[in-house]
Amino acid sequence: MPGRFFTTAEHDQRIAAVRSRMAKAGLDLLVVCDPANIDWLTGYRGWSFYTPQAVLLHQAQDGPLWVGREMDAPAARLTTDLPAAAVIPYPDGYVQSPDRHPADFLAETIRSRGWQAGRIGLEMDGYYFSPRACDILRTALPDARFADSDQLVNWARIVKSPAELSLMRQAALITERVVEAAIAGIAPGIRQCDLVADIYHAQMTGTADFGGDFTAICPLLPTGRGTGTPHLTWTDDPFASGEATIMELAAARRHYHCPMARTVHLGPPPQRLADTAQVVAEGLNAALEAARPGATCAEVEAAWAAVIRRHGLVKESRIGYAVGLNYPPDWGEHTASLRPGDHTVLQENMCFHCIPGIWGDGWGVEISETFVVTAAGGERLCNVSQELVVKS
Amino acid sequence: MPGRFFTTAEHDQRIAAVRSRMAKAGLDLLVVCDPANIDWLTGYRGWSFYTPQAVLLHQAQDGPLWVGREMDAPAARLTTDLPAAAVIPYPDGYVQSPDRHPADFLAETIRSRGWQAGRIGLEMDGYYFSPRACDILRTALPDARFADSDQLVNWARIVKSPAELSLMRQAALITERVVEAAIAGIAPGIRQCDLVADIYHAQMTGTADFGGDFTAICPLLPTGRGTGTPHLTWTDDPFASGEATIMELAAARRHYHCPMARTVHLGPPPQRLADTAQVVAEGLNAALEAARPGATCAEVEAAWAAVIRRHGLVKESRIGYAVGLNYPPDWGEHTASLRPGDHTVLQENMCFHCIPGIWGDGWGVEISETFVVTAAGGERLCNVSQELVVKS
Repeated sequence: MPGRFFTTAEHDQRIAAVRSRMAKAGLDLLVVCDPANIDWLTGYRGWSFYTPQAVLLHQAQDGPLWVGREMDAPAARLTTDLPAAAVIPYPDGYVQSPDRHPADFLAETIRSRGWQAGRIGLEMDGYYFSPRACDILRTALPDARFADSDQLVNWARIVKSPAELSLMRQAALITERVVEAAIAGIAPGIRQCDLVADIYHAQMTGTADFGGDFTAICPLLPTGRGTGTPHLTWTDDPFASGEATIMELAAARRHYHCPMARTVHLGPPPQRLADTAQVVAEGLNAALEAARPGATCAEVEAAWAAVIRRHGLVKESRIGYAVGLNYPPDWGEHTASLRPGDHTVLQENMCFHCIPGIWGDGWGVEISETFVVTAAGGERLCNVSQELVVKS
Repeated sequence: MPGRFFTTAEHDQRIAAVRSRMAKAGLDLLVVCDPANIDWLTGYRGWSFYTPQAVLLHQAQDGPLWVGREMDAPAARLTTDLPAAAVIPYPDGYVQSPDRHPADFLAETIRSRGWQAGRIGLEMDGYYFSPRACDILRTALPDARFADSDQLVNWARIVKSPAELSLMRQAALITERVVEAAIAGIAPGIRQCDLVADIYHAQMTGTADFGGDFTAICPLLPTGRGTGTPHLTWTDDPFASGEATIMELAAARRHYHCPMARTVHLGPPPQRLADTAQVVAEGLNAALEAARPGATCAEVEAAWAAVIRRHGLVKESRIGYAVGLNYPPDWGEHTASLRPGDHTVLQENMCFHCIPGIWGDGWGVEISETFVVTAAGGERLCNVSQELVVKS
């Protein structure tokens, strides 16, 4: 049975935390479409986010209301403890139709509660709330004052509870197995797709005590000239001797993610690659060391930058981001980034994926860690050697 | 090497087809953010769609321009044959930043080409073009006239080329193996996550001749009371004797999908389930029989509905949708649906997933086929028994 993953008390705390942020932002109503935010607030799960769905959270009235496709309403009843009246299905004719849109139904639901003249927060930069839906709400609710919720719920998720940390640690145990399987399996002549098969297998079987979930990003493994860019996926070509492969992998436990990148070379590596891998690991560990409560994200990046500068390297892109509960297409939380100018102050039990990739023309290195912020610095969730992996 | 999957001539034909639709819609410029549409037009691939990226296609000037994150530009060079000047990267500081947005950069790119006063089509109901991005374009390009492109490229994709059909057929060969592995593996006491491990493994290893890709929807396998709703994913609970499981699975070959659903019962099935499965298969085959060039989507649905009505069943939701090239979160193309009121006329070599699920309170049946429209009716791409699978 699907069942609940967290206690009702924990969901109640989360709802209270979000309402407190809503009060500060002056919001009467929040329209939540991000599947991770919906899950975090209510426990709702299922691969139903490809059709519009929302949780409506009013500042003062009712609890959260789930609005979604009729065939998914039983999933809301099975995975949440929302009362029956808080599960509000729309008929299937709204789905991908030229005549009507689920946002029409959503507007009608808001109106039926008398919430149409409030200040309404919308997830204006989410994947699962479209410009068409937004325009429909604006037209259908002319008395509302709309605001960009600016990742309000995402920010409420940034410090993990003990129950969440326990899932992060379980994910990390699976990630160790996934990365070990990938490193054990890669060899000249092995088809990329066959290695990916083993990676997925390890992600799902997990451990004898618990299994894994789908991850929000698929296994990434650029190889050869492809290592100059991070987001290529696999083909069915074989891995080749004399080439590097970057593996950015993860495991997810109940949708909590622990990502990890490692770099492998088949055969003796070029000096540049070996040297760069050493600098990346040194810089990564300097960043972890700096990741203490009270430090800012920018200061963590600066600790990395000081190391690589000493070695004559530069990197323009951010070196990490908050991570945790997520759904495709991204396991990042879209809140704090480890980069210059991000003055987010670290707090104990925030989790980040620090992934300081260095990419050149047709080559690159990624060595990363997912860590939790502790008084002693960023605590790595996995224990896997950070060295460049060299296989013959 | 990543390389190209289709000939330049085929991409040129696609671009010409889209420009012809743009002319009918009166569009000077199309902003394409859907990763499947980007892939179809240019060949660009990679799991980079979690940050904003776009292909700009002008009616008369230049070829398609790729605009995306700097670290992904090498992937554009590796997977497309766009000229160097047509790959336009934005700096990493635009990513998930409170100060600036990739849409600012996109607007600047449009302005730099002198396209800011044209009629510009936007994918207003896509996953990868946000309301915030849309508002930024509206503000930054006040002289433009914006239009909802209404799935313009998706509609151009609906009839498959011979090269595309060949990938659909390869995907189907993998799907057969995936479904067979799932049916072979399910048994009382087996953890759901372990069966999913085998499913993913089969999806990726494919055949000796070609491997598989990630699918746009993860394996769906509601079990027990969960079979009353279609989009639940797995847990690590074991499958139980006396319970049904619905498997909606797929395989993807170079991102072309062949989905298939089957229903399994562990132990002697309840009569209601066995009877319903028989009716669903009969109705499904009636729909396939009706899927000839010249028939409408509504007529295909009517053929199904006539069968189940005779058996005293009704179904409110659509029974299928166009399918092909896609990226998460949906393998459907968001164009034609097999349902009453959809008067899309079928043409040879359109592909659909016909999935007439019947769900009751805590139980359900799904038996589906992916088919290609031919003069002899819908040709099933897979050859797997449609019967309710009963295992002891």
